[in-house]
Amino acid sequence: MFKIKSDIGRIRGFRVAGVHAGLKKNNALDFALIASDRDCVTAGVFTSNKVKAAPVLLNQHRLKSNPSKIRAVAVNTKSANACTGQKGYYNAEKMSALVAEALNCKSEQVLVMSTGVIGTHLPMDKIAHGVELASDSLRDDWESTATAIMTTDTKPKFGSIQVLTANGNYTIAGICKGSGMIAPNMATMLGIFVTDARLTPAVANQLLVDASDKSFNRIVVDGDTSTNDMVVMMANGASQVAIETDADIKQFRRLLTLLSQSLARKVVRDGEGATKFITLDIRNAESEADAKNIGHTIATSALTKTAFYGSDANWGRIVASAGRANVPFNPDTTSLWISPSEMVYEDDLGLLIFQNGTPSDYFEREASAIMKEESIYITLDCGLGDGQATIWTCDLSHEYVTINADYRT
Amino acid sequence: MFKIKSDIGRIRGFRVAGVHAGLKKNNALDFALIASDRDCVTAGVFTSNKVKAAPVLLNQHRLKSNPSKIRAVAVNTKSANACTGQKGYYNAEKMSALVAEALNCKSEQVLVMSTGVIGTHLPMDKIAHGVELASDSLRDDWESTATAIMTTDTKPKFGSIQVLTANGNYTIAGICKGSGMIAPNMATMLGIFVTDARLTPAVANQLLVDASDKSFNRIVVDGDTSTNDMVVMMANGASQVAIETDADIKQFRRLLTLLSQSLARKVVRDGEGATKFITLDIRNAESEADAKNIGHTIATSALTKTAFYGSDANWGRIVASAGRANVPFNPDTTSLWISPSEMVYEDDLGLLIFQNGTPSDYFEREASAIMKEESIYITLDCGLGDGQATIWTCDLSHEYVTINADYRT
Repeated sequence: MFKIKSDIGRIRGFRVAGVHAGLKKNNALDFALIASDRDCVTAGVFTSNKVKAAPVLLNQHRLKSNPSKIRAVAVNTKSANACTGQKGYYNAEKMSALVAEALNCKSEQVLVMSTGVIGTHLPMDKIAHGVELASDSLRDDWESTATAIMTTDTKPKFGSIQVLTANGNYTIAGICKGSGMIAPNMATMLGIFVTDARLTPAVANQLLVDASDKSFNRIVVDGDTSTNDMVVMMANGASQVAIETDADIKQFRRLLTLLSQSLARKVVRDGEGATKFITLDIRNAESEADAKNIGHTIATSALTKTAFYGSDANWGRIVASAGRANVPFNPDTTSLWISPSEMVYEDDLGLLIFQNGTPSDYFEREASAIMKEESIYITLDCGLGDGQATIWTCDLSHEYVTINADYRT
Repeated sequence: MFKIKSDIGRIRGFRVAGVHAGLKKNNALDFALIASDRDCVTAGVFTSNKVKAAPVLLNQHRLKSNPSKIRAVAVNTKSANACTGQKGYYNAEKMSALVAEALNCKSEQVLVMSTGVIGTHLPMDKIAHGVELASDSLRDDWESTATAIMTTDTKPKFGSIQVLTANGNYTIAGICKGSGMIAPNMATMLGIFVTDARLTPAVANQLLVDASDKSFNRIVVDGDTSTNDMVVMMANGASQVAIETDADIKQFRRLLTLLSQSLARKVVRDGEGATKFITLDIRNAESEADAKNIGHTIATSALTKTAFYGSDANWGRIVASAGRANVPFNPDTTSLWISPSEMVYEDDLGLLIFQNGTPSDYFEREASAIMKEESIYITLDCGLGDGQATIWTCDLSHEYVTINADYRT
């Protein structure tokens, strides 16, 4: 039995803080710390970009050599500490050392995350100030913590699931940020999950990979892939509930995936300048990988995304995007439905627009009405195999251009 | 010896027309016809999209079976005749039959092109009217013809090269359209080249493939790939100059490439909503294919393109885009220069911004000044091999979003 909650309460052994370190203007929260009072088995998934920020490189190294003794994650905004060479790596190490000192553990037990402008060095005096403030104010205020990792996000993103088992209760909680720079095939944004369940490093890693693949790797805001993106999960075992049997693992995977999808959908809803939430349900491609590829190609098409923004039922752009996905695709076996909703049921996919290579006899008026909705569900049946993938995306608006043309100023 | 001209004069054996067939509003030219008074050896390159419009399928079929007897190309705007099934193919055949009747040749000798909205059938009454008007007004007005194939283009695109040889003179001329839906790896847009030189089908085809690969396949407006894109070249031999020797072929390839690049650059300059012309010179990648891939990834990055629009020297986005190109790339061997120009000379690449993985000691003021220019030349040296590719692209502006959100209305 489980309960999904849109907030996060106290989780045994974890304390958190979000503070204003002076990185951002106007007293905005800009530095976060998530700490455990005991060692955590910790898993991570990292950006697939070949340009990896210093904190990504540092964490990859630490989780490889020491995945069972992590105590804390510190997150700064404003500077990504990417493309910063040796000095950048040294600064990331220094940031972790400051946290370790404040929490009375070793540097090797601390992970760091950075988000912001690429190519600038961390302002270490402000980072030190952030560590000091945050470590002095560790409590259970997850909302402030989630707020303190935001960049162009307009809302903090967090949630939790409480699980009641025969062996006791445990919680999985997560916070994330992301807004632009969102694309599949990587960890996608900054995300931190914590749980008081007990996991082995191997199981924790597999669970995080599986859940990310069905959530953060299935959302697209603009198709860009950050140098800094990563998701980690810290399991401190404070609940004494061990996730060991296949049934336990299966349930944990399902719940972590649900929570991840919930956070991932929040990222899309809060996409830079987004006015619409689009679900792309790609069915009957030759394989799941092909379906994902087709969905991703549609979701990154500037032409398709601007048509969504204009509420234009220009469905030809959707089919044309699918056709350039570089996987088997045949318009003559393809059909397309649109529905004004976030979910559809198998027997009601909405308005049939295109059937086996030819426009269907639909009313333009009806299609236009659907496209004006805030949530649109698109089903593309490729008629080739049984590969399925769902991708969540948003439209491309004037506001996106404004945000990104002026980001550094 | 040769002369590059920004206009097109009379070319022996060819006559052309651009007319108003009633497809567009306000008496805009919307239908074009290019005709030869004798059979032409004709080559074509076509979209790589798996969703191919009816005219693409028809032309591919005709050029395969009959590449030496083409007499004419007819082009309509407003409807792409794509995703239109059997009826669409029949309409494309019918359009060619109408032209054949007017020109007194066979349907198999006529190629057709369509551009416009996907998923609508050709209005055959207006097409018939266009054929009638155009065939009655065939002359040497290439500017009207280039105007009549435009969609969201703001300017007609055309040019020619006159070549003086020991065996006589010949001309290569070309018109093209394109504005959105521009990406490498395909024929890219509608383009029609004519020449009064004499070519064999095999040589004509190889020359067109080579020239397109270095021009139309190296430009990016928005990364989308149309269902309709194609470039053809008709050679009617009226000059009696045969392109036979290796030297002749080499010269023709160089001139056709120059003309194609000139037209391709016009397409980028007239990109939907474009305010800047960006040259991406990718050097020392592991291979030419890798260099092209890196350039394409940068050129299709919404984040990079909006930063250009905002005149923001946010060069980290360029390096980050290169890092996700899915080819070997190492920031620590990479350097980046920017220059306020369309061309650079080997020993003056402009301002060094990033050197072997670390920001260089440049002045932000100087970088900002360069980014404010209308033409920007970016050199990215990957430090891995000797692969080079140049990609031309533009920024992503508010105007792009406006154009594409409202395209059908």
